[in-house]
Amino acid sequence: MTKTIKIITAPFISLVLLLSMTNAGVAETTISAEGQYIFNTLAFYIGAVLVALMAAGFCMLECGLVTTKSVSTIAAKNVGKFAICSIVFFLFGYNLAYGIPEGGYIGTFTTWGDSSSIETGYSDSSDWFFQAMFVCATVSIVSGAVAERIKIWPFFIFATLMGGFIYPISMGWQWGGGWLATSGFSDFAGSTLVHACGGAAALAGVIVLGAREGRFGKKGETKSLVPFAASSIPLVTLGTFFLWFGWFGFNGFSQLAMGTFDDVTAITKIAVNTHLAGAAGVVTGAIVTRLLDSKTDVVMMLNGALAGLVAITAEPLTPTPGMALVIGSMGSLIMYFGTKFLERMGLDDVVGAIPVHMFAGIFGTLIVPLTNAEASFGSQFTGVIAVCSFSFILSLIIFKTLKATVGLRISKEAEKLGTDVAEIGVRAYAIRD
Amino acid sequence: MTKTIKIITAPFISLVLLLSMTNAGVAETTISAEGQYIFNTLAFYIGAVLVALMAAGFCMLECGLVTTKSVSTIAAKNVGKFAICSIVFFLFGYNLAYGIPEGGYIGTFTTWGDSSSIETGYSDSSDWFFQAMFVCATVSIVSGAVAERIKIWPFFIFATLMGGFIYPISMGWQWGGGWLATSGFSDFAGSTLVHACGGAAALAGVIVLGAREGRFGKKGETKSLVPFAASSIPLVTLGTFFLWFGWFGFNGFSQLAMGTFDDVTAITKIAVNTHLAGAAGVVTGAIVTRLLDSKTDVVMMLNGALAGLVAITAEPLTPTPGMALVIGSMGSLIMYFGTKFLERMGLDDVVGAIPVHMFAGIFGTLIVPLTNAEASFGSQFTGVIAVCSFSFILSLIIFKTLKATVGLRISKEAEKLGTDVAEIGVRAYAIRD
Amino acid sequence: MTKTIKIITAPFISLVLLLSMTNAGVAETTISAEGQYIFNTLAFYIGAVLVALMAAGFCMLECGLVTTKSVSTIAAKNVGKFAICSIVFFLFGYNLAYGIPEGGYIGTFTTWGDSSSIETGYSDSSDWFFQAMFVCATVSIVSGAVAERIKIWPFFIFATLMGGFIYPISMGWQWGGGWLATSGFSDFAGSTLVHACGGAAALAGVIVLGAREGRFGKKGETKSLVPFAASSIPLVTLGTFFLWFGWFGFNGFSQLAMGTFDDVTAITKIAVNTHLAGAAGVVTGAIVTRLLDSKTDVVMMLNGALAGLVAITAEPLTPTPGMALVIGSMGSLIMYFGTKFLERMGLDDVVGAIPVHMFAGIFGTLIVPLTNAEASFGSQFTGVIAVCSFSFILSLIIFKTLKATVGLRISKEAEKLGTDVAEIGVRAYAIRD
Repeated sequence: MTKTIKIITAPFISLVLLLSMTNAGVAETTISAEGQYIFNTLAFYIGAVLVALMAAGFCMLECGLVTTKSVSTIAAKNVGKFAICSIVFFLFGYNLAYGIPEGGYIGTFTTWGDSSSIETGYSDSSDWFFQAMFVCATVSIVSGAVAERIKIWPFFIFATLMGGFIYPISMGWQWGGGWLATSGFSDFAGSTLVHACGGAAALAGVIVLGAREGRFGKKGETKSLVPFAASSIPLVTLGTFFLWFGWFGFNGFSQLAMGTFDDVTAITKIAVNTHLAGAAGVVTGAIVTRLLDSKTDVVMMLNGALAGLVAITAEPLTPTPGMALVIGSMGSLIMYFGTKFLERMGLDDVVGAIPVHMFAGIFGTLIVPLTNAEASFGSQFTGVIAVCSFSFILSLIIFKTLKATVGLRISKEAEKLGTDVAEIGVRAYAIRD
Repeated sequence: MTKTIKIITAPFISLVLLLSMTNAGVAETTISAEGQYIFNTLAFYIGAVLVALMAAGFCMLECGLVTTKSVSTIAAKNVGKFAICSIVFFLFGYNLAYGIPEGGYIGTFTTWGDSSSIETGYSDSSDWFFQAMFVCATVSIVSGAVAERIKIWPFFIFATLMGGFIYPISMGWQWGGGWLATSGFSDFAGSTLVHACGGAAALAGVIVLGAREGRFGKKGETKSLVPFAASSIPLVTLGTFFLWFGWFGFNGFSQLAMGTFDDVTAITKIAVNTHLAGAAGVVTGAIVTRLLDSKTDVVMMLNGALAGLVAITAEPLTPTPGMALVIGSMGSLIMYFGTKFLERMGLDDVVGAIPVHMFAGIFGTLIVPLTNAEASFGSQFTGVIAVCSFSFILSLIIFKTLKATVGLRISKEAEKLGTDVAEIGVRAYAIRD
Repeated sequence: MTKTIKIITAPFISLVLLLSMTNAGVAETTISAEGQYIFNTLAFYIGAVLVALMAAGFCMLECGLVTTKSVSTIAAKNVGKFAICSIVFFLFGYNLAYGIPEGGYIGTFTTWGDSSSIETGYSDSSDWFFQAMFVCATVSIVSGAVAERIKIWPFFIFATLMGGFIYPISMGWQWGGGWLATSGFSDFAGSTLVHACGGAAALAGVIVLGAREGRFGKKGETKSLVPFAASSIPLVTLGTFFLWFGWFGFNGFSQLAMGTFDDVTAITKIAVNTHLAGAAGVVTGAIVTRLLDSKTDVVMMLNGALAGLVAITAEPLTPTPGMALVIGSMGSLIMYFGTKFLERMGLDDVVGAIPVHMFAGIFGTLIVPLTNAEASFGSQFTGVIAVCSFSFILSLIIFKTLKATVGLRISKEAEKLGTDVAEIGVRAYAIRD
């Protein structure tokens, strides 16, 4: 569903048949163009606030999952990225995405502005507000993966480029009406455009940076994993809840309209499917870790929720609720085995961002044709490859360039001290027992 | 107020007189059936998101109040229960409640589905979404009470049965239009149907499980309480704030409609009364502990808020705001003395769930007739006895059966290690000073 | 914009020309009076919930920034103040503000009540609910500044007087239609009426109380600052995010209406400007501390966000988004140098409330004429002086009176033990490494 096609028919007396309605006789919407404008704008507003909550969610999740000596730094990165991405998306990101010609590749390098009228169907500002929060979410996926060893300012440079260029450009291919939209690709709320895109960038970062010191001990030496204890499980849990709630807005209000029977019904069907996919992800995470690892791993339950949510994001409307349970469960399984796979490859993804967002996101995108007859596997495959390659390759270039110039990784001494002491100068916790 | 009576009059030109309006002349609602449908659906949606926040609230409150060695476990239980209850409520819980014949005892054992039309007055999915969050809240009440010694998987089995059967069945007696509704019982948003129901189940669990090791020392030995320090007061406070905010949705949107002057006005009157009852509970908790215990106990202030909120839940619309203050204050007092009573009985309710939810909930239900002339003490008493007995007895049977079969309580060794190490394998905090 | 001017035109067929619309032909609103009533009431409701979140935000921010031995106390103060302010605002505060005669100085000493009709344009309860959360926010500004040495009950007395009298009276001068409104003062959502007012009271408190023991060491002895480490940076960050999100309601819904094209468009333009001002504050805080202090100070980034948000609050609608970036950035700079200034003056503001809320608030108010032609520097200056003086002088009198009677500051022994042990009897954290 293209995200900002203007509802040009709104101001006219609507002729849209509400096809899904069961009663004959009510065939036209009774809501005036202004009424629809208000409802749609309110939908974007509520959606934006909910997706904003995801910024706090990512922050708490990452604060909780890093070790205690990198917590202040990851907090600074999260709030910094939230700010930076919003500013660059205003300055040029939005119009790079939505200023794209039909079927094209890139929009215009201009500053966003509000030029709302009732014909636009909703206020431009509400749309910008909602979309801006998606940029922040996308870049958030990266910060967790590369935590504890990336320097803060090079990360901010990356966030500028990712939030200002990489994400907006590839997102515009689809939601701006570019070549992917024309090709028949289907990604309702961003399993690929947001999550796999962010995950692919995270993968590039993890490869270029290398693992944290001592993360992968010599053979037989399992003790080396001890110092990597998560700083606070309650914060991880809190962050996951926030992300989950944020997804009600992320997916639900990607319907992009609320002013008719059909639209508001769709929003709530999406909310139910989204919720059930997350729920299935949790249960699957609990069962799998209990069976395979003997302990019921709370982190895998939480990442299971997120993977389930990511998986349903490409198509949260057409599946039945029962199918949503299956999709969420599969997403969680893919996350679990993806995590093991990355560990075996020696890739150090601190929070599991790559298996959660990239692997489950790709899965969710590829299975859209199972429930949505308008999508095809070929188009889905094309979209996944295009967006992931674009994000991965550009991120790789940026990270390598940063490494070769200003430097990307903190010094070994700094890593021993922890990024909090080395870069921020503020210890995260001063808690006496 | 029956929760899902379909607004069958909505599509007709409304003849409802807006009796509370002061100006003659505006006698009929001007909102079209579709407009009302959108407003009502949006009300359920916002309500669901707010009540979902209560899941995070319970989780943070419980993480904060347990000792540091059971925090990861309680987080896992909370997110697991959130998932499990949602799934079983979809699979059969919803229709067990709302598929009930008029005046009957139990609904049908079928899977929920959306069959919305404008005649239903709101989208079925929005209703399911809202109601599902109530199930999660109900079961959350139990997890805090039985924390730190119940095994995680038997708890999940209990959550399945409570969320799938016990709560839906007794709730359907009233909100599904069953025998309690017919009898004249009045419970607007669930002082009894949610809170006392959950509290009664918690009481059964606490009795069957017994107290945590060392919780009740030998006579004169007060030192034994030292190791039970709450792990984090800020998290308890955060959780209480979330629950408080969630209550704005829990009570306000139990009006179940927002598409007319009367409905939206009621929602906001309810919000004010709810807020003031919580506020009175806080102040009462502060004063009582300062006077009787010499310290101003922050936990009693927080539980006072919750008890005030529980007490107003049975009837948040008809009291004046001044009366709401009195009800909240009384609820807080009952919680305070109920807590002392439970301690004297040797019952170990880790978070005070029974005094907060059961005792204050019963109180709130019984005093409905003071402000609502349509309720009678007899009917209220019947409802309280019926729901609490049903919940308590079935929970007792389930807990005893689990104890006799798979085992309910962790081993003494595991309890010494803490449930985090014994069951989850992830320590909650790795925070260096 | 006067906050509760009743929308008396609403029930009539509206003749308001939607001047900002680009298409001729749609000149009148199509929303019925009842429809507008519902939208407006919903706007207040959503706004209230968002501003309520700020109470949790202040609480987490303050819990995080105080030292570990004062955390339970600050939590108790925050939840206590949230309750107290709500109750006194119901009992007399609201009518002291809004019962004011046109151009007058003080309202009536009467209890608030709901007398909604469609003519009022929104439900009275929704308005009270929204405004009550502003009172809580104002008093929250004080609690952080005076933390760690003020006694809890004298603080509650102050909260009663500030929330019941000081804030409502001076706020009524403007938003109740009193003499400031008549004079031409402009303060859209409260840079001065809320933030500078609270900051001025905080300044009085800090002066009367004096600094925490050992806060300002002897010359050359910088070690004395070591024990004042923030207890938890993640909680500070979480609190800041909550405040930020709360500001979407604080500023956006101070539009006080949502039932027309113009109003809902304004709400979202305000949200964008508010968000960008906060973002600019973060980036400015990061750059300034990196350049001047060599470390990228996460606390200054977070306080930078808040200062940017405070600065835009006086006029969040008329600036362009680009101008909002400038205003937010300037607010952050003023906060940074204001913090240094206070430290040099030996004033111990524990959380930086005075530079964030008072200094940035005054700045934001004074620059309103730059973007809003209806405001004048003279009127802005008058308003700032009037409100700040009123708040500062009355607060000074109250704090001095409390000091001379019941006592204001905890004993030196209690301060060594920490307020948690001395006053609350509950340690905030029991976290083992």
